[in-house]
Amino acid sequence: MSEIRSLALACREAVPAIAALDSAAKAALLHDMAASLEARCADVLAANARDMQDAAAKGVQGAMLDRLRLDEARVAGIAAALREVAGLPDPVGLVTRRETRPNGLVVERVRIPLGVVAMIYEARPNVTADAAALCLKAGNAVILRGGSEAIHSNTAIAAALHEALRAHGLPEATVTLVEDLRRETMVELLQLTDIVDLAIPRGGEGLIRFVAEHARVPVIKHYKGVCHLYVDRTADPGLALNLLIDGKTSRPGVCNALETLLVHRDAAVAFLPHAVEALRARGVELRGDDTSRALVPDMHAATDEDYAAEFLDLILAVRVVDDLDEAIAHIRRYGSDHTEVIATRDAAAAQRFVQAIRSAVVMVNASSRFSDGGELGLGAEIGISTTRLHAYGPMGAESLTVERFVVRGDGQVRHPVSR
Amino acid sequence: MSEIRSLALACREAVPAIAALDSAAKAALLHDMAASLEARCADVLAANARDMQDAAAKGVQGAMLDRLRLDEARVAGIAAALREVAGLPDPVGLVTRRETRPNGLVVERVRIPLGVVAMIYEARPNVTADAAALCLKAGNAVILRGGSEAIHSNTAIAAALHEALRAHGLPEATVTLVEDLRRETMVELLQLTDIVDLAIPRGGEGLIRFVAEHARVPVIKHYKGVCHLYVDRTADPGLALNLLIDGKTSRPGVCNALETLLVHRDAAVAFLPHAVEALRARGVELRGDDTSRALVPDMHAATDEDYAAEFLDLILAVRVVDDLDEAIAHIRRYGSDHTEVIATRDAAAAQRFVQAIRSAVVMVNASSRFSDGGELGLGAEIGISTTRLHAYGPMGAESLTVERFVVRGDGQVRHPVSR
Repeated sequence: MSEIRSLALACREAVPAIAALDSAAKAALLHDMAASLEARCADVLAANARDMQDAAAKGVQGAMLDRLRLDEARVAGIAAALREVAGLPDPVGLVTRRETRPNGLVVERVRIPLGVVAMIYEARPNVTADAAALCLKAGNAVILRGGSEAIHSNTAIAAALHEALRAHGLPEATVTLVEDLRRETMVELLQLTDIVDLAIPRGGEGLIRFVAEHARVPVIKHYKGVCHLYVDRTADPGLALNLLIDGKTSRPGVCNALETLLVHRDAAVAFLPHAVEALRARGVELRGDDTSRALVPDMHAATDEDYAAEFLDLILAVRVVDDLDEAIAHIRRYGSDHTEVIATRDAAAAQRFVQAIRSAVVMVNASSRFSDGGELGLGAEIGISTTRLHAYGPMGAESLTVERFVVRGDGQVRHPVSR
Repeated sequence: MSEIRSLALACREAVPAIAALDSAAKAALLHDMAASLEARCADVLAANARDMQDAAAKGVQGAMLDRLRLDEARVAGIAAALREVAGLPDPVGLVTRRETRPNGLVVERVRIPLGVVAMIYEARPNVTADAAALCLKAGNAVILRGGSEAIHSNTAIAAALHEALRAHGLPEATVTLVEDLRRETMVELLQLTDIVDLAIPRGGEGLIRFVAEHARVPVIKHYKGVCHLYVDRTADPGLALNLLIDGKTSRPGVCNALETLLVHRDAAVAFLPHAVEALRARGVELRGDDTSRALVPDMHAATDEDYAAEFLDLILAVRVVDDLDEAIAHIRRYGSDHTEVIATRDAAAAQRFVQAIRSAVVMVNASSRFSDGGELGLGAEIGISTTRLHAYGPMGAESLTVERFVVRGDGQVRHPVSR
C-alpha cells in the first residue's frame, strides 16, 4: 500500500470517533487547540522563520511573502478563529424535516458529517488551523495538503492541533498533514474514491484547475469571481456610487470585488462621468465600450478578454447597456456564477434580475463585498462554491455535512407477510 | 465543434426558458406531455416492436427483454407518472431560510435549478419520460442518453415530449435525446464541464463505474445496495421475522432488498431456526458463519465475498454477532452506505445504531423496502445517492435544485465610503 493511501486510511478510521463527539466535546477540543497553539507560539514562529528564509532565498517577495508570514498577532488571530468556530452552532444531528407517512412511518432528515475532507491549499499557514477547525466542527476528519512554502509552519501548527487531539483521547490522524508534497502524491490522494468524500482546493486558478482535472473524488471549487454591478435606470445615484467604490476599491485583490460595471443608457449620462471621476481619484483604471468612451474622455477600449477578466486589481471594465435584458445577457455570457449586484429603485426590475441571474449570490442594493461566509451569517467560511451542486456560494460548517434519512416504525412492511 | 457538444450547448441555451416557468406552467407542460404520449401510443408501440425484434434477434431474453417491453398499459403508466410529477410541489423558488443581519441586510437561501442534467441509463424506455419529467419539474433542461436496445422506443417517446414543448413555445432542446450511442460520444458528453451541471447514471454496476471513471462533470451515483437487518437481543421476534421476509423476498432483484441478516447471539437460538424455516419455505438459500451453521442444519458457509455481495436474488448471508458493536463493525466493513435496519425494543440500542451507522437510510423497526423516494414522501425518484454529497439516499425533484443566496439591502457597504 502506498504511503499516502495508508495515511488516508488512518484518517478514515478516525471518522467514527470524531463523528460521535457531541457539541460540547467538539467545542472543548477546539478551545484546547487554540490554547495549545498559543502555548506553542514560539515553535510556530521559529518554523515560520525557516519557511520565510527558504522563500526569500528562492526570490519570493511582495504579497506572496506576506501571505506566508506569521507573527505573534497573527498566531493570536488563528487561535481566536479556532475559538470562534468553537462557538458556532453545531450542524451535526440537526433534524431539518420530520414527516409522518400515512402508514405511520416517521421519516426524518438528519444532518451527518461527510466523513473525510481533503483540503488542498497554497501558501497561507492559517488555513491549516482554519480548515481543520471547520471540518472537526462538522464531525469530519481532515487531510491537509498545503503548499511547500509553508511546510514548516504547517507542521508546527499541526503539532499543536495533535496535542489537543491526544489530550481528548482522539487519534492524531483525525487531522492528517501530508508532508510528501510531490504532485503525483497529490494526484493519488485526489483519486482515493473509496476513502476521501470531498476535496476542496483553495488558491489560485492554476491549483484549482489542476485539482479539478485530476480528482476522481468529488470536488467543490470556484475558479474566479467576475462580479458585476448593474446600475439600473432607476438607481439612486449616490447609493450606486457607494456600491461601486466599495466593490472596486475596498479590497481589489479578493474574489468578491467588482470587476465590471454595467450602466443603463438612461442613467449613464448623469452617472458615468461622476463615477469615473470618483474611481480615478482612487487610482482605478477604466476600460469601456464605445458608448462609455463617448461619455468619458481618455477611457481605454475594453476587449472581450477584459469583460471575462478577474483583474484582482484597480481596473474596472465598463459597459453601457440598452436595458435590463442586455445587462442579464452580458452577465450570462461573461459571468463566473459568483456574485452580481443590481442597484435599482424598481422592485420589478430587482425581481427580474434575481430570477434571471443564476449566480451563487445575487445582491439588490448591497455591496458585492458582503459575499462572504462571515458577512452572510455562516460564522466562518471553508470556501466558496461556484459549482451548482451540494453548496453554491460561501460554505460554512453546514456545507461539510449532508442530510440523510432516519426512519422509525413499529414493524411496517411493504407487502403484508402471511405466515 | 463536435456534434455532441453542439447538442449539449443547445440544451444549455434552453435553460433560461425552462428555469423561468412558474409552477402552473410547468404542471401544464407535464400534463400536455402525458396527453401527447397517450395520443402517440401507437407510434410508441410500433417503435418498441422494432426494438423488441432487434433485441430478440440479438438473443436478449428474460428479465432484460421484459424491461424493454412496452404495451398499452405500460404507456398509460408512463403518462400517469408524468401527471403525478405534475402534481408534486415545485421546489424552485422555495425560500428555505431568511435572516436579517445586524447591518440590516436580509439574507435568503432560495432554491434554483441546477441547469443541465445528463441522464445515462440502460434498457428501460420509461426512464426517458420519468427522468425528463423530474428534471423539468425542477426547472432543468435534460440530456437523455439511453441504451441502444431502446433507441426506437426512446425516440418515439421523446417525439411526444417535444410536441408538448413546441405547444408551450419551448425549444425541443430542453429535452435532448442523444441518438449517437457510441461510447466515445458518451465520454465526451461526460466531460463537458462547461455545459453539464450533473450526470446521473442509472443501471448496472458496470455502467455506473464506467460513468464515474470517465466523467469530469459531477456525478451522483450508487453502485449497489448491500442492505443489512440487525436483529437485536431485545427484538420482537415476530416483527423481526416480518421485516426479514419482506426485505428478502418481496422483490429480491431491487437495491433496497436485504442481503445480510445479523443476529445478536442471545436472540439467535430462538430466532434463527424459525427464520430459516420461513425463508426456506419461500425458496431462499442461506449462507452463514460457523455459529449460524451450528444452530441451523445444512446451511452453506458464507465467504467474505458473500458478505460483500448484492445478490439481487433469493440468497441471504447470515451472521451471529456478539453484540450491537459487532453488528456495527460488520456493517462498516461490508456495507454499501445504502440502507440498514435494526429490529429492537431497546430505545438506547436503536439510538446507538442510528448514530454509528452512516448509511443514507437507517430504519428502526421498518422494512428496508421502504428505502424509496415514493415511500419516503419525495413523490418520485430520479435515483438513489450513496455519495455523501449534495444528496444522500433517494433523490426527488428537490435534489435537482441547489440553494443560493439572495441578499437585499438599502445601500450597505463593507467599508464606509467618504466622498
